[in-house]
Amino acid sequence: MSVTAALGFRASGITAGLKASGRPDIALIVNDGPHYVAAGVFTSNRIVAAPVVHSRNLLKQAPQAKAVVLNSGCANACTGEVGMRDTQMSAAKVAEVLGCKPSEVLVCSTGMIGQLLPMDKLLPGITQASEALSPTGGDKAAEAIMTTDTRAKTAQVTTEGFTVGGIAKGAGMLAPGLATMLVTITTDAVLDAERAQKALEEAVRLTFNRVDSDGCMSTNDTVLLLSSGASGVQPEPGVFEDALGNVCADLARLLVGDAEGAAHDIAIQVVGASSEEAAEAVARAVARSNLFKCAIFGRDPNWGRILSALGTVPEDVAPYDPQRVDVSINGVQICRNGGVGDDRENVNLEDREVQVRIDLHAGDAEVTLWTNDLTHDYIHENSAYST
Amino acid sequence: MSVTAALGFRASGITAGLKASGRPDIALIVNDGPHYVAAGVFTSNRIVAAPVVHSRNLLKQAPQAKAVVLNSGCANACTGEVGMRDTQMSAAKVAEVLGCKPSEVLVCSTGMIGQLLPMDKLLPGITQASEALSPTGGDKAAEAIMTTDTRAKTAQVTTEGFTVGGIAKGAGMLAPGLATMLVTITTDAVLDAERAQKALEEAVRLTFNRVDSDGCMSTNDTVLLLSSGASGVQPEPGVFEDALGNVCADLARLLVGDAEGAAHDIAIQVVGASSEEAAEAVARAVARSNLFKCAIFGRDPNWGRILSALGTVPEDVAPYDPQRVDVSINGVQICRNGGVGDDRENVNLEDREVQVRIDLHAGDAEVTLWTNDLTHDYIHENSAYST
Repeated sequence: MSVTAALGFRASGITAGLKASGRPDIALIVNDGPHYVAAGVFTSNRIVAAPVVHSRNLLKQAPQAKAVVLNSGCANACTGEVGMRDTQMSAAKVAEVLGCKPSEVLVCSTGMIGQLLPMDKLLPGITQASEALSPTGGDKAAEAIMTTDTRAKTAQVTTEGFTVGGIAKGAGMLAPGLATMLVTITTDAVLDAERAQKALEEAVRLTFNRVDSDGCMSTNDTVLLLSSGASGVQPEPGVFEDALGNVCADLARLLVGDAEGAAHDIAIQVVGASSEEAAEAVARAVARSNLFKCAIFGRDPNWGRILSALGTVPEDVAPYDPQRVDVSINGVQICRNGGVGDDRENVNLEDREVQVRIDLHAGDAEVTLWTNDLTHDYIHENSAYST
Repeated sequence: MSVTAALGFRASGITAGLKASGRPDIALIVNDGPHYVAAGVFTSNRIVAAPVVHSRNLLKQAPQAKAVVLNSGCANACTGEVGMRDTQMSAAKVAEVLGCKPSEVLVCSTGMIGQLLPMDKLLPGITQASEALSPTGGDKAAEAIMTTDTRAKTAQVTTEGFTVGGIAKGAGMLAPGLATMLVTITTDAVLDAERAQKALEEAVRLTFNRVDSDGCMSTNDTVLLLSSGASGVQPEPGVFEDALGNVCADLARLLVGDAEGAAHDIAIQVVGASSEEAAEAVARAVARSNLFKCAIFGRDPNWGRILSALGTVPEDVAPYDPQRVDVSINGVQICRNGGVGDDRENVNLEDREVQVRIDLHAGDAEVTLWTNDLTHDYIHENSAYST
C-alpha cells in the first residue's frame, strides 16, 4: 500500500502516453489532511530540472503541500523557461482538478534530460489521474514512476499507532546527492514542519546518500515527506525518526538491488576510521573505482584495486597508515597490514550480495555504503538508453 | 629508436618468463654519460609500490642515475618488506652487471598488485638484459614494458642539435596522478638537475595528468627523465621544454589511443573558465561520468549527461552560470544556454576521435583533457584480468 498505507492519503498511477513503451507514467498522491506538513530533500547538482526549482521554492515559502504529481518519461531538465512554465502549468492543472492552490502542489519528473514535456498528453493525464485516485492506490503510483527500474519499489512500517510508507524509483545515475531517484513518503503521524524536515534530512543522509551505484548525480532527485496527522498520534522523540529511517533504508536497499545492469549489490563497510567523514570518503572512493567494480562482476576478489582506490583519498580527509589496512571480502581476510592475507581462492562471489570490510585501524568511526558492480548490461542499457 | 635516439644511451628488452604469455618482460636502459642527470614524477596515490618508494628515495638523495630497470608482469605493490627487499635486490643486480652502484639504478614495475616478484626469473633476466644492451635497443625496451597494451608506445623529437625520446606503457587505471603508466624519457641535451625536474613536472602536468581514461589511480606510476648531455648542446630557455612537452604529448596521446577496451578517444575541451583549475575540474567531472562514457560508446550525443556531470563541480571550484553553458560535440552545438541547441541528429560519432567543447562563459581559461568511452571490451578486460 506504500504511500496509501498511512491514513489520510489517496493515490493513483495511470498511463498518459509519455513513454514509448506504453507503461504507466503519471502518479498523483493527495494528502486529505487534517494536516498538510511537507518536507523535501533535493539533488545537490547545480544543474537542476524545472520541477526541482518549483518544489524547492514552494517548500521554502511554506512547508506545506496537498498533493504531489510525478511523471516518468521526461525529466524536464535543461529545458529553460519553457520547461519552467510547463512545470507550473502541471501544478496549476492538479490544483484545478483537486480544488486547491497551485502553490500546494509539488512536482517531480524523471526521464531523458533536454526534452520538453508533451503537455498535450500530460494535462489530460492529470485529469485521468485525479479520477483514478484511491485510498489503496499507492502501489499504482509506485509503478507509474518507474523508468529503467525492473520492479516497483515500496516500503512501509506501522508502529506505536502511526504508519510511514513510501515509493521510490531509480536505477541509474545513482549517487546522492542523490540518485536519479524520486521518493515520496507519507505518514499519518502528527509532526510539525521542523521535525519533519530534520528527520527527513537525517534519514536521507544515512540511507539514500549512502547508495553510490554509478557515481553519477542526477538533475531531478527529490525525496518528499508528507504528513497528514490523521492518526492523531504524536510519536515520542526518536520513534518516528526510527520508523522513517527504516522505510528509507528499505527503499535504498531496493534501489541498489535494481540498479541498471548490476549483477552484484556490494556493501562497503569501512571501520576503524578517524571520523564518519573519513569512513565515507574511503568507502566512496572504492565504490567509484570502475576497476574494482569490474573485478566483482568477474567474481575476482582483486583487493589490490581496493587498496589503489583508497590510496586516492587525501591524508587530511582520512588519516590512516597504508601498512595497517586490512580488507575482507565475504568474510575472508585477503589483505592484512596492507599486504597479502588469506588465500583469495576462498572468496566466494557467486551470491548477488557482497560484503567488503575495510579496517583502517585509525579510530572508531564506521560507515556502510552500497554500490553495484560494473557489467555488460550496464554498458548496454546506458549506451542505448536514448536511442 | 625512442630512448636510444639520444646520444649516450643503450637499451634492451628481453623475456625472463615473468608473464604467462611468454612476451618480453624486462627492459633495461643505460645512460653512458658523460652526465647522469635524472628527474622523476611519481603517482600521488598514498598506496605506492616498492619500486616507487625506491626510485623516489634515490632521486631525493641525488638527482642522478646510470640505469633504469623496468619489469612488466608484476607490480610489486602491496608486498610489504619482502617486496621492498626484492626491489633493492633488483637494483643491486643491475649495479653488479653494469659495474655501477645500486644507488644509481632506478626501478619500475607494472602488472598485478599483491603478488611477489619471481626473483628466480627476474635476476637471471637482468643478466640477460645487460648482455642484450644496444645503442638501437630502445624499441625492444618499449615492447618489454607492455601489459594490456596492444601496441608499443614511443616518441622522439630532434631539434636544435639535441634529441628527446621516450617510451610509455599504460592502458588501464589511467588517471594521473598518474596512470598505470611507466614512462622513461632520455635526452642528450645538457641540463642541470633542477631544470630537468622542473621541465618534467611541467610537461607531466600538461600531458599525462590530462589523460583520465578510467578515473583510477595506480600504485606504480613513474615518469623518468635521464640526460646524458652527450650532444654537448645546452638548449636555450624554453627550447628543451618544448621538445620534452611534445614527446610527452605524443606519448600521452598514444596512451589514450590504446586504453583498455576503448572504442573512442574523447578530447574534452573546456573554454571560458574562470581559471585553469576550474576548467580542469569541469573536464575531469565529465571524463569520469560513466553515463557520458557509455553514451559515446553508443554513438549517442547525450549532452544531458554532460550537463549533469558538470553540475557536480562545486561553485567555489568553478564558478559559472548553468543558464549560459554551451556544449558542442564534433562541431555541432547541441546545447545552447544550458538548454536544447542544434539537432542532435547532425552529430556524427563514427570516428574514433571525438571532440567535446564546453564553453562556461565565465572567463578566459581553458584546458583539454583526454578520456575514453566505456565499453563492453573494458568490462571484459577488467573482469577477467587476474583470472
